Amino acid sequence: MSKLAQLAATTVAPPCCPSLTDRELTEEEAELTAAMFKALGDPVRLRLFSKVASHPDGEACVCDIADVGVSQPTVSHHLKKLREAGLLLSERRGTWVYYRLAPAVLSALSGFLTTSD
Amino acid sequence: MSKLAQLAATTVAPPCCPSLTDRELTEEEAELTAAMFKALGDPVRLRLFSKVASHPDGEACVCDIADVGVSQPTVSHHLKKLREAGLLLSERRGTWVYYRLAPAVLSALSGFLTTSD
Repeated sequence: MSKLAQLAATTVAPPCCPSLTDRELTEEEAELTAAMFKALGDPVRLRLFSKVASHPDGEACVCDIADVGVSQPTVSHHLKKLREAGLLLSERRGTWVYYRLAPAVLSALSGFLTTSD
Repeated sequence: MSKLAQLAATTVAPPCCPSLTDRELTEEEAELTAAMFKALGDPVRLRLFSKVASHPDGEACVCDIADVGVSQPTVSHHLKKLREAGLLLSERRGTWVYYRLAPAVLSALSGFLTTSD
């Protein structure tokens, strides 16, 4: 198991947030959660995120996902934003950086958006 | 049942999007989905959204949710953005506008963020 896979396996769900229908978010919870949604709120960033998430190996080399019609520095910038938002984990191996979903964070966001309505 | 509740009950899930782990998003799917995440990517907007979602009546009068520390025009602006993104439904009744979640859209976003990893 690579370091990246180990890191992904041990990442725990962030304390934030309740399901939307449970109760109002506090200001602090709203800050944290909005930052993650903001990171997903750009089409190119979302495509890069989708490429990592759907990669059959469970992780993606930046060299495999960079064909989104923008320059390499822009790709790097978007991947940095996704990492800073806690949505992706990254690991350098040799020449390339590999990316993997941070699954507990996704589960938290998915649970947040789940409603019994 | 109010017109708003009827509208919410008949709203169907948008065609977008597959689960993140299924396949890459197309450019068009990424545009649509990123617009919804962008609407949730502001702390004040997310608090307003949370106030509507957690309201015990299943809908909220704008008069009940406007205490988020910003001016009334700013509240109106944020609610308009949430409506335009397809996340909230609104209905004017007398003096006030009432808001309700568009539940099928939330289910779609929640499903999108669900992964078996």
